Amino acid sequence: LRGSSMGNVITRCLELGAASAQYVRGSMEDEAFPEHVVKKAELVLGGLDMLILNHVGNSYFNYFDGDVGHVQKLLKINFLSYVAMTVSALPRLKDSGGSIVVVSSMAGKAGFPFTAPYSATKFALDGFFSSLRQELIIQKVDVSITLCILGFIDTESAMKAASDVVLVSPAPKEECALEIIKGGALRQREIYYKYAATKIPLLIRDWAPELLDYLIRRSYNVENLKKN
Amino acid sequence: LRGSSMGNVITRCLELGAASAQYVRGSMEDEAFPEHVVKKAELVLGGLDMLILNHVGNSYFNYFDGDVGHVQKLLKINFLSYVAMTVSALPRLKDSGGSIVVVSSMAGKAGFPFTAPYSATKFALDGFFSSLRQELIIQKVDVSITLCILGFIDTESAMKAASDVVLVSPAPKEECALEIIKGGALRQREIYYKYAATKIPLLIRDWAPELLDYLIRRSYNVENLKKN
Repeated sequence: LRGSSMGNVITRCLELGAASAQYVRGSMEDEAFPEHVVKKAELVLGGLDMLILNHVGNSYFNYFDGDVGHVQKLLKINFLSYVAMTVSALPRLKDSGGSIVVVSSMAGKAGFPFTAPYSATKFALDGFFSSLRQELIIQKVDVSITLCILGFIDTESAMKAASDVVLVSPAPKEECALEIIKGGALRQREIYYKYAATKIPLLIRDWAPELLDYLIRRSYNVENLKKN
Repeated sequence: LRGSSMGNVITRCLELGAASAQYVRGSMEDEAFPEHVVKKAELVLGGLDMLILNHVGNSYFNYFDGDVGHVQKLLKINFLSYVAMTVSALPRLKDSGGSIVVVSSMAGKAGFPFTAPYSATKFALDGFFSSLRQELIIQKVDVSITLCILGFIDTESAMKAASDVVLVSPAPKEECALEIIKGGALRQREIYYKYAATKIPLLIRDWAPELLDYLIRRSYNVENLKKN
């Protein structure tokens, strides 16, 4: 978000009763920025209880265009910066017995068309953080990792990119945000929102993968893809 | 492989009855190399029927050490070069109605400890190629994509890295190679080798995720991890 939008967010947080609220400006494409954000947060807050990783870079919603450079750039923003934030925050999260919350998507669990670069980055998060969770359990480290599997949500960017093409009705972003925070606070392994629209399709992904592939393809109005 | 080892492979291919066999030397860390390999293959072979993507970069088998640079480097070799090879080869594979075979792992489908960077790269392959497969089907492009889910195989590198720690007996690499080629030739969506040891655990990953996490942790002898 731009500086002025972030100012509005801060004002709204304080209106809603937050004791304090801060922001740090920068780009997650910049490899040094994740560590800088965590250090700044520690300085301002005196410690860390919960790390919610939720940012994504812009991508296109269309057939894969062959641009490998774009995939690499998106991996930096959507995946590597999440890993870097985690590395920087983990010592403080160990101190507090804290939580890591990783926001992902249905497109990070099953094959959806028109989001190949995005899907790669969201699957990578599942691989990395599911492996790390196992290691923390083996080491008896009391830091929880929650992976959030979200369906189609009515955020401005998702609506703009996909609302003409996706034939499912979007879920409200406010309730979604609450579910994400609850999942972290309750130290759940994964959360699904909305539950029925995300968990049930995933229950068949390994039992009837071609059926799920077909159902996913059927949920698009391909004629409404933007012509470039 | 080094040049002399590749020479031995070529000799053995010809002994076994191959009409011809070629190799190209280089590193998949070099961003220009994937395109070079495909162009060279087209030149030598006059076209392409099957693209088998199987190389991986060296990684460690241990708790995640916080080295984000290593994760980035491994993504280049294990993931981005697969995408680049595919982009270069796709026009010729469309000509021939060919196949893409992507070699992955159980650690590319579920959370295994001690392979966080590797798991991230293998999950990323699933996300990217499962999305691309959906797009090829929608576009009625006759190129198949086969993802290979392999368990513990008795290759030299896997035995060296993990045989002291992993409590499952390794499957033979020769039979594994045959299953990979069969999967591509039969245009299967995914192959599992060995089937029972890979497919059955995955059938429970969304139904009883914490049970699968537990069973995976139980399959390691953590005391035998290499001390650094």
